[in-house]
Amino acid sequence: MKKSISGFSKLSKLGKLKWLVENFFKDPERVMKDLMSYWLHDEEKQKIIDGFSENTISNFYLPYGVAPNFLINGHTYCVPMVIEESSVVAAASSAAKFWLSRGGFQAEVLSTHKVGQIHFCWSGNDQLLYDHLDRMKEVMLNRTSNLTHNMRMRGGGIVEIALLDFSNQEPECYQLHIKFETVDSMGANFINSVLEELSEVFNKYVQEHIDSNGVEIIMSILSNYTPECLVRAAVSCRVDELGEQKGSLNAHEFARRFQKAVRIAHIDPYRATTHNKGIFNGIDAVVLATANDFRAVEACGHAYAARDGKYRSLTDCKIEDGLFKFWIEIPLAIGTTGGLTSLHPMAKRSLELLGHPDASTLMMIVASIGLAQNFAAIRSLVTTGIQHGHMRMHLINILNRLEATESEMKAAILFFKEKQVSFAAVRDYLAQLRSEAQTEDAVAIPT
Amino acid sequence: MKKSISGFSKLSKLGKLKWLVENFFKDPERVMKDLMSYWLHDEEKQKIIDGFSENTISNFYLPYGVAPNFLINGHTYCVPMVIEESSVVAAASSAAKFWLSRGGFQAEVLSTHKVGQIHFCWSGNDQLLYDHLDRMKEVMLNRTSNLTHNMRMRGGGIVEIALLDFSNQEPECYQLHIKFETVDSMGANFINSVLEELSEVFNKYVQEHIDSNGVEIIMSILSNYTPECLVRAAVSCRVDELGEQKGSLNAHEFARRFQKAVRIAHIDPYRATTHNKGIFNGIDAVVLATANDFRAVEACGHAYAARDGKYRSLTDCKIEDGLFKFWIEIPLAIGTTGGLTSLHPMAKRSLELLGHPDASTLMMIVASIGLAQNFAAIRSLVTTGIQHGHMRMHLINILNRLEATESEMKAAILFFKEKQVSFAAVRDYLAQLRSEAQTEDAVAIPT
Repeated sequence: MKKSISGFSKLSKLGKLKWLVENFFKDPERVMKDLMSYWLHDEEKQKIIDGFSENTISNFYLPYGVAPNFLINGHTYCVPMVIEESSVVAAASSAAKFWLSRGGFQAEVLSTHKVGQIHFCWSGNDQLLYDHLDRMKEVMLNRTSNLTHNMRMRGGGIVEIALLDFSNQEPECYQLHIKFETVDSMGANFINSVLEELSEVFNKYVQEHIDSNGVEIIMSILSNYTPECLVRAAVSCRVDELGEQKGSLNAHEFARRFQKAVRIAHIDPYRATTHNKGIFNGIDAVVLATANDFRAVEACGHAYAARDGKYRSLTDCKIEDGLFKFWIEIPLAIGTTGGLTSLHPMAKRSLELLGHPDASTLMMIVASIGLAQNFAAIRSLVTTGIQHGHMRMHLINILNRLEATESEMKAAILFFKEKQVSFAAVRDYLAQLRSEAQTEDAVAIPT
Repeated sequence: MKKSISGFSKLSKLGKLKWLVENFFKDPERVMKDLMSYWLHDEEKQKIIDGFSENTISNFYLPYGVAPNFLINGHTYCVPMVIEESSVVAAASSAAKFWLSRGGFQAEVLSTHKVGQIHFCWSGNDQLLYDHLDRMKEVMLNRTSNLTHNMRMRGGGIVEIALLDFSNQEPECYQLHIKFETVDSMGANFINSVLEELSEVFNKYVQEHIDSNGVEIIMSILSNYTPECLVRAAVSCRVDELGEQKGSLNAHEFARRFQKAVRIAHIDPYRATTHNKGIFNGIDAVVLATANDFRAVEACGHAYAARDGKYRSLTDCKIEDGLFKFWIEIPLAIGTTGGLTSLHPMAKRSLELLGHPDASTLMMIVASIGLAQNFAAIRSLVTTGIQHGHMRMHLINILNRLEATESEMKAAILFFKEKQVSFAAVRDYLAQLRSEAQTEDAVAIPT
């Protein structure tokens, strides 16, 4: 059977579902019922979620949790987190609690500029373009003033237009590199709309004033790399205030090992990748909970981690004058208005929970969660190791999946204390436990 | 009010929810009801999802959609995608359809090794460590044979143990760099458990045979950077088979502009970030739908994009001998067993939909989606621009959110054809439309 189809997107939601289960599942009716069981009862809300994407047939569920006790710039937040990985919310919460009594997180937004690009080819003398640049910019700003009006009223708009020459790397390749301020929105739609308009105005200017052939516009689109949309979050305390850690590690030994672990993530990209991955466990969870775009945030953060030619840690640690200092600097292009932030019903709740922050405040919250996550991960790694807690949680997941009773849970946790946890091992253990119980019952009955 | 709390994690789900709404929301009862309305009716399933993370109080919904017509290595897939961003599933579907009649996607797994690291400090003569290395490895393999037994039975296990010297970058810093084969599982839990055991065996060996003080283990953990867990996906056809494109672009002009766009993403990190972000739009959607870890996949892919010292495109394009060739090489450490892949109820459906693939097959599917996504994005960018389709979808999202009727939708789509779409603008437009309708009604009544 060739399972291709024409006109799929034009089918109704039910029509799509029907084609899908009939062509790809062994038990179509049961699967259809199952996939429909995840639909929201509130049809209006379901319609909103369906509308975000295309060919939607059901909903994917992720746990929505919260990490309380985040003291950031003197304000206590309970932070919404959407994440499927165990230990992430627990780690964030534990780091928040730890720093709550040690001054909390200090965060500041260093800059908020976004970036757009118009890539074009030009075979003429580039000095002509540079000569006209100031006049061109003026025309470009004027001719897009309708599009940028509302954003300018809110304090944003086009900040800067630069002409960059890439022709030494690729023949005839140039770029207009444009900085934007988009205030409380992430601004992707705004920037892209303005760029497409700007590129037409630009080309028309060139045709009228420099060369009637104009330039060849290759593409006009925002850049997700925003090193000037940067936030910093930091924690610090006296080394002795760090207290004794698990594994009877004293505060000074702990601080030394902690700093060593951060240092390793600066010199070894294999370690840096995992180190930063942990940071994004926390960051993405809040980005998702507020319906921001985690792919944009990830791409930017990792590219930033490689900015000096070597992929490195996004956090840094210093011990000086008896003080332990730990901080993160990371670009975060996120918003609290526009995009899906005001469309996803749960994102609205998340922003309400955070006290309706503006974009800068959300940047500081998200950076603090990332730092907290990294603190908790390194603390585990240099003291007890991460597996103890992690495997216990994974075991409980598997036991839930296998519908274990409370007493079976207790027995399994004891049994797997020193053993490798896997789905098969737990299933086999439960099967044995249950067959023994039956044998006992069977024996018990005749007496 | 100081909104911190002790013992939050020990509260029941309802207890957590109650504390949350009472302390952070203006209308606690309504919000509580709202957050509970997202709970699954099936309590067993809800318990499973709650168990994935901590402090869970509700579920976060993402649209679950499908992209049909993916011809990969001669097999036609309908690919599950979980993504909140509009146009992503549509783009994947359109690229799939385009290549369906042009030979489809050719994919191959180049390697499947995962990586673990034991970071340690050693102040002695490092030649001693190297002298003992072979014997040490043997002991380490033997002493962990219980832990690795099941994995070895499935064809996996520890592949290689190397000793790396970082002491020129950080005093006393060394590493055991360990390669693993984890077959169809992503293997994080397996690798971390084995590493923690290995580090104890290693240190004990050093204590017994080299120096009674042993080494100082700093941390033992998998690396998410897996450049040797690599997959390649490619499409190709004769240039003239690309056909005429939108904007009356002929096949050859299109191919040239397409290649230029890919080239720009190799020379400019600002463009590369967005280019790769688009690839991950597709990749993460499938990674999420199969309950794999998208943070791990993102971190690895972006670090890989920066491997030669400059952050670059993950895809490449060549036009030679009249052929258009477009391909991606990307490390993807994902699994089809273990972790949450067999625990999340929707992930099980996703894997069923894909025909129960092994990990290598899933790697090839995911890489193909990434390539498709990039093809569709570049095709839009170098022909019509991306905003036209994108803004129309965003407009419909907003109209859904504002509960617009069919006729209001039609009017709004017409009205916003040449205007900047924003939530406020659409809200204002609808308000005006509705007040005009009321005026008409009011006028209509007396006649």
